[in-house]
Amino acid sequence: MTDPTGGRRYRKSMELFSRACQVIPGGIYGHTTPALVAPTASPYYASHARGCRYWDVDGNDYIDFMCAYGPVVLGYLHPEVEEAAARQRRSGNCFNHPSALMVELAERLIELIDFADWAVFAKNGSDVMTWSVRVAREHTGRPKVFMVDGAYHGIGSWCTPEDAGLTVEDRAHTHKFRWNDREGLKELFSRHGESCAALVLTPFHHPLFGDSQMLDPAFVDAVHAQCEHYGAMLILDDIRAGFRLDVHGSHRPFGLRPDIACYCKALGNGYEISAAVGRHELKLAASEVYFTGSFFGSSVAMAAAMATLNIIERDEVPARLAATGEAFCRGLVTLAEQYGLEVKLSGPPAMPFMTFANESNFHRSQQFVETALAAGVFLHPHHNWFISNAHEDADVAQALQRVRPAFASVKELFDC
Amino acid sequence: MTDPTGGRRYRKSMELFSRACQVIPGGIYGHTTPALVAPTASPYYASHARGCRYWDVDGNDYIDFMCAYGPVVLGYLHPEVEEAAARQRRSGNCFNHPSALMVELAERLIELIDFADWAVFAKNGSDVMTWSVRVAREHTGRPKVFMVDGAYHGIGSWCTPEDAGLTVEDRAHTHKFRWNDREGLKELFSRHGESCAALVLTPFHHPLFGDSQMLDPAFVDAVHAQCEHYGAMLILDDIRAGFRLDVHGSHRPFGLRPDIACYCKALGNGYEISAAVGRHELKLAASEVYFTGSFFGSSVAMAAAMATLNIIERDEVPARLAATGEAFCRGLVTLAEQYGLEVKLSGPPAMPFMTFANESNFHRSQQFVETALAAGVFLHPHHNWFISNAHEDADVAQALQRVRPAFASVKELFDC
Repeated sequence: MTDPTGGRRYRKSMELFSRACQVIPGGIYGHTTPALVAPTASPYYASHARGCRYWDVDGNDYIDFMCAYGPVVLGYLHPEVEEAAARQRRSGNCFNHPSALMVELAERLIELIDFADWAVFAKNGSDVMTWSVRVAREHTGRPKVFMVDGAYHGIGSWCTPEDAGLTVEDRAHTHKFRWNDREGLKELFSRHGESCAALVLTPFHHPLFGDSQMLDPAFVDAVHAQCEHYGAMLILDDIRAGFRLDVHGSHRPFGLRPDIACYCKALGNGYEISAAVGRHELKLAASEVYFTGSFFGSSVAMAAAMATLNIIERDEVPARLAATGEAFCRGLVTLAEQYGLEVKLSGPPAMPFMTFANESNFHRSQQFVETALAAGVFLHPHHNWFISNAHEDADVAQALQRVRPAFASVKELFDC
Repeated sequence: MTDPTGGRRYRKSMELFSRACQVIPGGIYGHTTPALVAPTASPYYASHARGCRYWDVDGNDYIDFMCAYGPVVLGYLHPEVEEAAARQRRSGNCFNHPSALMVELAERLIELIDFADWAVFAKNGSDVMTWSVRVAREHTGRPKVFMVDGAYHGIGSWCTPEDAGLTVEDRAHTHKFRWNDREGLKELFSRHGESCAALVLTPFHHPLFGDSQMLDPAFVDAVHAQCEHYGAMLILDDIRAGFRLDVHGSHRPFGLRPDIACYCKALGNGYEISAAVGRHELKLAASEVYFTGSFFGSSVAMAAAMATLNIIERDEVPARLAATGEAFCRGLVTLAEQYGLEVKLSGPPAMPFMTFANESNFHRSQQFVETALAAGVFLHPHHNWFISNAHEDADVAQALQRVRPAFASVKELFDC
């Protein structure tokens, strides 16, 4: 089913990728690597984007449900965010000092996020996650970190998903438990709780190559009880979900009480910024763990973040994303039924993920996404999707119309 | 000599800092923290900047010799760089895929840098430094890293300058040697050479609170000989100096033969980008060490980097920076003599640093810089300075005129 030449449709993508393989290890590295999507049957390079529409380098256009893997929460090139960024850019971006925006943005986050008494800013999700772990270590005087097996928390040496280039010591204090596994969590705490600095959790579990899983309320209780009993900090990795589910942070809808939370993707609607916020008790430790980068104080991304947060709050964006996502998911289920197929939608509707029933190898998902891409709908076979506030009802309706042949091709090829 | 209220001159800075202390640990963290400069006697917050001129939030203006701690190599808001960035921004910044610019920028770096066969891009200097160490570890199958005592290579756990938040294991494989100390280096290799993955080196030594030190050619020979004998990789940290001393990389003027080199600050003239380049032999390992971030593929910073590199090459910027820096340094020495003072200028003239003779506590430097700031010249008492291509002869002449009272006040207060 896969055209090894990439066909005419992705010709420029394939040509660029050939050039890239000469000068970049693996051609494309990281989360956008073709190896994680649908090699040769998907675009590899971007041309431009606007609103919820995305164009690849071959001129193919898509209704986009990946939103740059999360950052684009309001739609590409949102006029108000771009205007706020442009206004700041006329003053400059990167200076000898931070601008007043750094203070204003910290004040704004603390106003929005109920438990937050302070904030810091950086460039990557990994920056704030690894720094937060250090802050918890400094605060508790303990080394160990507990994380969910299969969770992604960035490329810090304590958590990066691959082993290549690591030393044995890098993972000496990282211990894993299973999502929603109360007994496993208790057992881990009973073994290492006295030396646990932090438990790290996403607000819902979104493993690559797997259904998303929501939090079991009884598990939330167990997390709080164990952390409180052993004096471990709870670090919320809200990098992927933050400000998409609740402008006040994703801990709220799930009843989590974190000590530190980390944000990144949606915070600047595509401008390069990440943040960590935390409780007062951790402020001294936070001031002691060294944290810097050449562009951590850059003002343009902070202006974009201020505008993005204001719009998310003003336009009640999380509720809109949920409603749009629900409509899209309902439509997909209905369409699947029309083709005699059964699909499962998991995760919050604002960040849905679809799998086909009774298969674990993702062959149907790959076929579905390859055909959807060719029909002008950008989806991912192995990673949760993202709804943006630029998706109007008409875009959802058009996307559902466009994915019909994708369901048809799955039905035809797999005769299920 | 220090006004504890910050005086009227920095009133808005101090007010903002008070607010910041409520909501940001330490108020300002990282390399721009007031604690590292001249507390209460320097500005803390930026307003705007253009060319080689910088305005703080109180409206004080400076001829700027810090260039945002390095990034601004062509001057703030360089029209050609801004135009290239704006052109790309009209297409968007952050997409589901990289843009063609990622391939073109990798090709451009490989064209410029003689030993480079591949390139990768990220956001912080720390990103590429820590990843490069992992690549060397993966390539060699060895854990240890040798670095210069007092060198700064970012906030990776193997090298971050403070201990807060670290575990014992974080530094298990980091070993230090002294700059230009051939015997010490040989001794370190004789103990741990068989398990050494990489030796990490800056092209010149620029410790905080110390004179810059150039490379002893005999030490360069020893570095090459030891690395070759033991099969250790040589990683050049060219983050601070890169493209300021030589558009082909700072290894060239110093005769270094690195296996990997890392760039950041000047690469995008203030736009958020970093890069690592390396030899072909390391390409497989480089493809295996996971490396990603939400904004690693952002296209606007890549457009800015392409424009910046083109201008640096076309206008022979490194030669201009050296000439401008030499004129500034000569002028400072001459002025100092007029006031009966002796100063030492160290480091390459494009990135000079000045200390007063016969003192190690920096009290004269602090007094000098406080007065220079008040007179409208932005310098740093403890960190090397940066010349940009926007510094014209007239700016240097004006800066030298403005720093006269700074020399006078040192003479008067220290009666030296």
